[in-house]
Formats: sequence, C-alpha cells, structure tokens
Amino acid sequence: MQNFSFKKPTEFIFGKDVENEAGSYLKKYNANKVLIHYGAGSVVKSGLLGRVEESLKKEGVSYVLLGGAVPNPVDSLVYEGIELCRKENVDFILAVGGGSAIDSAKAIAVGVPYEGDFWNLFDQKAPVGKALPVATVLTIPAAGSEASSATVITKMSNPPLKRSLVHDAMIPVFSLMNPELNYTLPAYQTACGVVDMTSHVLERYFTTTKGVEITDRLCEAVILTIIKEAPIAIKDPNNYEARANLTWAGTIAHDGTVGVGRMPDWGTHMLEHELSAMYNVAHGAGLAVMFPAWMEYVYEEDLDRFVRFAENIWGIEHKGDKKETALAGIKAIKEFFKSIGMPTSFEELGAKREDIPALIEVLKINTGGSFSNFKKLDMEDARKIYEIAAR
Amino acid sequence: MQNFSFKKPTEFIFGKDVENEAGSYLKKYNANKVLIHYGAGSVVKSGLLGRVEESLKKEGVSYVLLGGAVPNPVDSLVYEGIELCRKENVDFILAVGGGSAIDSAKAIAVGVPYEGDFWNLFDQKAPVGKALPVATVLTIPAAGSEASSATVITKMSNPPLKRSLVHDAMIPVFSLMNPELNYTLPAYQTACGVVDMTSHVLERYFTTTKGVEITDRLCEAVILTIIKEAPIAIKDPNNYEARANLTWAGTIAHDGTVGVGRMPDWGTHMLEHELSAMYNVAHGAGLAVMFPAWMEYVYEEDLDRFVRFAENIWGIEHKGDKKETALAGIKAIKEFFKSIGMPTSFEELGAKREDIPALIEVLKINTGGSFSNFKKLDMEDARKIYEIAAR
Repeated sequence: MQNFSFKKPTEFIFGKDVENEAGSYLKKYNANKVLIHYGAGSVVKSGLLGRVEESLKKEGVSYVLLGGAVPNPVDSLVYEGIELCRKENVDFILAVGGGSAIDSAKAIAVGVPYEGDFWNLFDQKAPVGKALPVATVLTIPAAGSEASSATVITKMSNPPLKRSLVHDAMIPVFSLMNPELNYTLPAYQTACGVVDMTSHVLERYFTTTKGVEITDRLCEAVILTIIKEAPIAIKDPNNYEARANLTWAGTIAHDGTVGVGRMPDWGTHMLEHELSAMYNVAHGAGLAVMFPAWMEYVYEEDLDRFVRFAENIWGIEHKGDKKETALAGIKAIKEFFKSIGMPTSFEELGAKREDIPALIEVLKINTGGSFSNFKKLDMEDARKIYEIAAR
Repeated sequence: MQNFSFKKPTEFIFGKDVENEAGSYLKKYNANKVLIHYGAGSVVKSGLLGRVEESLKKEGVSYVLLGGAVPNPVDSLVYEGIELCRKENVDFILAVGGGSAIDSAKAIAVGVPYEGDFWNLFDQKAPVGKALPVATVLTIPAAGSEASSATVITKMSNPPLKRSLVHDAMIPVFSLMNPELNYTLPAYQTACGVVDMTSHVLERYFTTTKGVEITDRLCEAVILTIIKEAPIAIKDPNNYEARANLTWAGTIAHDGTVGVGRMPDWGTHMLEHELSAMYNVAHGAGLAVMFPAWMEYVYEEDLDRFVRFAENIWGIEHKGDKKETALAGIKAIKEFFKSIGMPTSFEELGAKREDIPALIEVLKINTGGSFSNFKKLDMEDARKIYEIAAR
C-alpha cells in the first residue's frame, strides 16, 4: 500500500426533497451572492430550478442565473460565467445539474479569482490559487463531480482540446442529492452514467500497487452494487431504491474512497476524451467502447488482477487457465454494457476507423506522447487500442 | 434507503513515518498550545512520544503532556485533563495512542469549554456546545475513534457507569496513521482490535432498513478484508500490508461510510459495555463473546439478512434451509473469533453467570430499560442473551 492523505470535506445531504434545502445550506456556508449555474432546459421545465430559487428567496440569499451548460462543457460559457460573477460580485456558485453543469461551475470558480485567461490553468501555464466555493444540486449520478476535486472542459479550438484540471479548491462544499430527480432521466442517459461511474472504479481497480485488499474490496463492492441496480433503474425509472443506490455509488466511485493507497490508471479516460471531443458523444458511451478494448490490449500485463476481476465481480469460476478466465471477465463487462443499451464498438458509437490518426494526433498533444500506469502506453499502443474498438 | 447527511471532515495522513508530521499539521490547523494526551508507557518507551515532541519543537508549537489514559478510560483523568488545559490555556488536543487515549482526549475537549461538571454532558443533563479541536496519532487500529464523533467514558462510581457521547464537535481534525506503529501490538490486543472493528460494521449491517445495497456491499467489503488480513497480522506482526489494510479497515468501519442510509443496531455494544465496566475486560474480547450470543438470539427476526451474511461474508453455500444457513454463518464468525485467540464465552472472558442480575441492573440504568433496533430488546431479552453467552 502506498502512503496517502485523504480528505473528503463535502457535506452530503441525501434523500427525498433535499433540493429545497439549498437556501438554508448556502446561508450556513455564508454565501452572499450566488451564481446558479445549470444546463439544459429540463432543469427549468421540471420545476427544479423554480424550487431551488424559491428556497434561496425564502432564506434571503440573492442570486443570478446562468444556464446553457452542455455535455462536454465548453470554454465559451466558462468565460461568460467568469465575467458575470465579477460583474455581480458573486461569492458562491451553486451548480444545478449533472457533471456538465458542475464541471462548468468549477471552471468558473477557479477562473474568477485568476486574473489571466482561465485556460492557462487547464494548460498548466499557471497554478490554481483560490476558487469561489462551489456547491451542487445533483440531477444525474455519473461524473462524481459532486464530490471530486476535478473538472473537464473542452476548448473549442480546431481540433477541440478536452482537458481536465484537479485541485482541492474545487471540491464542493456541499452537495444536495435527491435520487427522485433522476426519475426523468432517459434509459440511455442513465446507462451512460452507469458506465461512467463503473469506469471511475475500474481506473483505480486496475493498478500496479500490490497489497491493497481494503480498496480492492471497496472497488468490488461499488461495481457489484451498480451491476445489481442499473438494470432495475433502467427498466423501472421511478424505483427509488435503485436510483438511490446508483446515486451514492456514483459518489463513492469518484470521491477517493475506492482509490486510497494505490496508483490509479486513467488511460481509458484519456483515450475516451478524444472520442467525445471529436464526435461530441456522451462520455459514458465512449467509455463503454474504450474500456473493453483497453482491457483486451493490456490484460496480459497482470493476469492475476484480471482473474480476480472475473471471479469477484462477475462470479466467473476460475478453472485454472488464467487467460481464459481473464477473457471471460472482459467478455462479461462488454455484455453488461451491451445489456444496458450501451455501444461497444466504434461503429455503434458513430466513430470512424479512418479518424484514428487524427485522434492520435490530439491525444499526443494532450498526453505528451505517453500516459497510463497499469501498462505504460505510447501512441502506437493507443492506435492499437483504438483499432480493437474499431474492429 | 433512509435520507441521510454525511460529512467526514477529518484529514487522514496515512503511511510510514507520518507521526513526524504532527508538528506541521498542528501548525497548519492553527494550534497555539497543545495538550499531548497519551496512555500507557509503551508510547514513551517505544520512542514515539519523543518523535512527536520533536516534530512539535521543530515547528515551534508549544505543548504540555498528560499520560495515563487507560483502557475503558475513566472520568478522573478527564477531570485532570480539563483542569490542566484551562490552567495552561491549551487550545488543541493531540491524542497519541489507541481508542482509549483518543476517547479520553475527546472528553477533555468537550469538557474544557463547558462550565459545569463534564459528566453532565454524558448524563444528557446538558448538551454539547463547543469543543477544543482534537487530532490523533493512532497506534492501535480498533475503536475507529480517529475518525468518529463518539467517545466512551467510564464513571468510577459503584457500580461503574460506562457512557458514550456522540457529537460532531469531537470529530478529529486530522489523524496521523502509521501502520508500523502497530508492529509491537501483542497478538491478543491485535485480535481485540479486529473484533472491535468487525463489530462496528456488524452493528450497521444488521439493520431493519431495506434496499441499501451500496452500504451492504461496503460492509461486506470491510469484513472480507479483515478476515483475510487479521490472521496474517497476528502470525507475522511486522507485515506492513496486513497492518495497513487492518488500520484503514478500522477507520472505514466507524467513520460512517458503511452506515449511511440505514438504521444501525448497537445492541451488542450496549450489552458489552456492562461487561467491560464490571470486569474491566478489553472491549474487543467482550464483543467476541457477546456478538455470536446476540446473533443466536435475534437471527430469526430476519432470516434473509443472516443468510446473506453467511453467503457473502463466509462463502457458505445456501442449500435452501434458511435457518441452517443462518446458523452456519453464526458458527463461522464464532470460529473466526476463536481462531484469532479471542474468548467466545463468559467463562473464557472471566465473567460469571451469577453476575447477570447485576449486569442487567446497570444496563437498565444506562438504556432506560429497552434498546437496540434490529430486534427491540428489553431487560428480559438482555438476560437471555447474557445466558447464551454464559452457556
């Protein structure tokens, strides 16, 4: 086990109707002027935004609104949010939505106190200093952004650049999580979230660190929960228990709990980022295609790890041939993704084999030419993994 | 799943040599004058106290010392600590030790700003207001006190009264956790810790709340880890990985992670508290006796839960007869406790059947006559459970 430090300062308020407490929690955390940042019209149409506004008014907390956050959130709205916050003397940002609205809110939060172009922070030209405090009302369990220190923003240059930024200053102060808000999520979007949270665990599970039984078991616990609850939530969207279990699984998957003491991988996320940047496909759908492809390429690096994955997560009986068991595990996760309606190939995703060189080109810019930990990957490895996905 | 709020503000610094960072973390958290509170002479003899003092001196953090915390920490030392803190203008308490030193430190921390007799807080005659900040250097993984909001103190009256107090103000600000500090723990004490942390999970696992798959799985993950690592640590006390996994399992077991969204039980802890108050036996040893006895008495309340316990934790094949499977699970945990050298009966513990009426008498004072959640227990139930343990 590696040395680690772990701090999870977010206050989670979880359950039915908790969105109505937005105002009182903002007051508790000394917000004076809030930017409520949200995405799609669904937050407006469903009445959620109205309820949140009402709770702020009730507590006398003043605010301004900024909608329009899109999946794979883009730099233009971040610039707009930064300007608005400065003009309105905003001192607290409340994101209402899923990972996109929260990630966009986090980028605004670090951008406001930084005097230069906020993209410098994502470009590692400048370090993150301070950030406005961020809180969330979570509507989509998936990205884990309600508890994480990370954000991913796409710069709409040509080619688009998708970059992540990680800093403790962006960890939400509090997150209001009502699983009922997920009832209206379409099956496809629910499934994308399921793949996203599963992937957050897998990026940590496939590690070169030995002797970390506790986080191995915690990883397995979260994925076993997801495998049980996802089909229920997709078939019966108003099933509170299934939605609640998935929602909390999504948080645990990415708040550090399942990652302490070990070296994570993150290779598949990097491979996927280029897909969603180029085709604007949902991150979860891209991961459903890339994770099995990555596994197929790297599994012989540590057969025992893949045997454990097959046995403890998929209940596959290991009869002695490690390669056979490992491949059965990879087949099982691919079938699970397929069973919840996810694509598992370039074709189903709408990606094209002939674009692989272009994908590699941007990947090289974003990674500096090598990345990942479970197996160190270079651009030739990446090409082969994309080829497996395009098969 | 029940609505919940969850906040885990402690900063954990985990790994080799982290005790040397005590001074810098105290400085980070603005300590001016520190009470270093510890227990047995082993902290002195091993050189640990010296290293901690050195790290405070290096950072220019001044301090006073108070040793003498005993297992099942007592009120007299708490009074002494409160007086010392007031006299020396202490504004931060650093506990160096296991659950006893930490619990004692927490009681001092709530006692200093309270003007009356601190026992009023434990007697529920007055609410907890403020507390001095507490931090820990953990030497024994067991109680989970390094991350919890709870403390247990024994008032040395006749009969002795063992009471717990729970308040967020007592959650440690930071905890320095070096698993190497456990190398010198004797096998018996290691095993007591193992039972203690296992029990913290079981008190939450046996719940009447339905549909909480995520925390069910997390509970199972922690116990599976303990079952694997405990025999290794006992056989090979200097095995870093085993010690590290147990240490972190002990924290996760009691920091709320495995308890969210569900009603916990805590009946066995209440039954045990009377044993350790009367005989001054180690809390873990008492739990090893009382948990299987409690299980045997209550298992028919929810056979499915006990079948799951048998299958998912002990790998027992369920052949159709729920009662049979449930009893096999109970037998398995008793055997596990026995295998690590723990007592599983009154006799082995040094407790006496004829004391049961006296135990019940104090239990009645401490619980008001009924307690527990999985099965509501009254004094007659308690008597029968003690009888099972005394068999």
